[in-house]
Amino acid sequence: MIDLAIIGSGPAGLTAAIYAARAGLRFVLLEQDGYGGGQISSAHLVQNYPGVPEVSGFDLGEALRQQALDLGAEVTYGTVSLVEQIPEGFSVHLADEEAPVQARVVIAATGASPRPLGVPGETEHIGSGVSYCATCDGSFYRGKNVAVVGGGDTAVEDGIYLSSICSSVTLLLRRDQFRAAQRRVEVLEKLPNVTIRFKVKPTAVEDKSLVLDTENGPETLPVDGVFIAVGSQPATAYLQQLPLTLEGGYVAADETCKTAIPGLYAAGDIRKKQLRQVVTAVADGANAVTSALEYLRG
Amino acid sequence: MIDLAIIGSGPAGLTAAIYAARAGLRFVLLEQDGYGGGQISSAHLVQNYPGVPEVSGFDLGEALRQQALDLGAEVTYGTVSLVEQIPEGFSVHLADEEAPVQARVVIAATGASPRPLGVPGETEHIGSGVSYCATCDGSFYRGKNVAVVGGGDTAVEDGIYLSSICSSVTLLLRRDQFRAAQRRVEVLEKLPNVTIRFKVKPTAVEDKSLVLDTENGPETLPVDGVFIAVGSQPATAYLQQLPLTLEGGYVAADETCKTAIPGLYAAGDIRKKQLRQVVTAVADGANAVTSALEYLRG
Repeated sequence: MIDLAIIGSGPAGLTAAIYAARAGLRFVLLEQDGYGGGQISSAHLVQNYPGVPEVSGFDLGEALRQQALDLGAEVTYGTVSLVEQIPEGFSVHLADEEAPVQARVVIAATGASPRPLGVPGETEHIGSGVSYCATCDGSFYRGKNVAVVGGGDTAVEDGIYLSSICSSVTLLLRRDQFRAAQRRVEVLEKLPNVTIRFKVKPTAVEDKSLVLDTENGPETLPVDGVFIAVGSQPATAYLQQLPLTLEGGYVAADETCKTAIPGLYAAGDIRKKQLRQVVTAVADGANAVTSALEYLRG
Repeated sequence: MIDLAIIGSGPAGLTAAIYAARAGLRFVLLEQDGYGGGQISSAHLVQNYPGVPEVSGFDLGEALRQQALDLGAEVTYGTVSLVEQIPEGFSVHLADEEAPVQARVVIAATGASPRPLGVPGETEHIGSGVSYCATCDGSFYRGKNVAVVGGGDTAVEDGIYLSSICSSVTLLLRRDQFRAAQRRVEVLEKLPNVTIRFKVKPTAVEDKSLVLDTENGPETLPVDGVFIAVGSQPATAYLQQLPLTLEGGYVAADETCKTAIPGLYAAGDIRKKQLRQVVTAVADGANAVTSALEYLRG
């Protein structure tokens, strides 16, 4: 039985590994992909991670991973299928492995994925016209014309955020109304460079334009970039047998990363929080280990 | 009237500047020292900031500062003497300046300083035998013999933390009892490689040893390192006219950095939190700007 199993090798999990290694814990980092970084690894350019300006997401992920390895982190490859409670802690089952990893505490850091639109051209234009994060990429579209797809809270906040950076912002909603908080919709509606269009459906992403299905037939909307905000899916399926509290699908925990289950910590994008960025994921990794140390030595 | 004044150019303030610049805010960063980094700038070696392995604290601070400047942050030098509320926001007074900076919102990121022992040899040995942060520097004393000076919660947690890294840990208390939580003292007392000594007073730091004043006269204690945990002082004097909530001297705010005063945010070591590290300071900087944006555009 080891002290700690860290599930996930994005910025939260890798930072947890850095802090766990330096604290002298016996732990393993369970990694699915064979490389570090999680969601950030697909980012073309990261400009807002302090101390590492203008880096590709893949290189940033690898730098974090190498740092954890250099400090002695042990990485096990595999996809976690189930975490269950046992008297001494937790049993972490891996797909295709007979023996589970048994650990006194677990840090769940498996992140979240944006939901794609699923239209032709979308994947090909990621990083060159398609983004899933306004806070991350808005600054690359300064003075440009952009569209935001979605009608929920994230889409509205993205629209407000982008309006002060971009020349124009067009919100595109499939439905005839917003699902977002009315107070924030009113803020969005008052912005002079924001246009809101209901009952339109993007059907393809092309170079510098978006093809829409409208009530009057197909239309080509010229835009420099499109921000897709149609939902995000935290990776929590392997936790489903545990009596965790979820909020909107995310694991409920404050900044200490303590969940409703003693000894289980939620770090990074999987956690209910205000802002999902590398910079908040790394803080979670350090806080989760600090909370785990208090528990293990309590 | 600008949108935002950021007070302090440590990791929290500089990250706030990076996020504010990318969000298109009109803001100024108020810096006291003429260089970035705050408390970390005096760290000999930083090993646990993810993505920048094995860096001096000064270089890490300068990297953060350069990144903020490259993104367009405007830095004003000066020491903030007072922040007061005005109808439109806040008036930030600088010592030796007649005109205050007026901003709709303020991010207070002035950090905290560890209290020194104030004994001969202490300052000279910082980074080579003297540390004020076990989480930061404990790993550099793996397998070594160390002392911890103090009897409060931080000293006890440092002792517990260091016990699994170091060969031996000696707690040194001036008084005849702990001020820390009894439950954690009991954890410390049970650790086999920890010695607790009451009524001893360090009077000098020498190479690989500490001079103590004991009831039986002076004594030289051989140690490889000494961790000083006799308190920390957040820099909040300039906020004293505001109806803020303080906890143990720190500004009360959760991870969103929202204080009791709308439009005023506390980021970094000045904030009441579990873990004060660069990694949590940078998260605060990003969260404070996110909260400020919601307020400014609300």
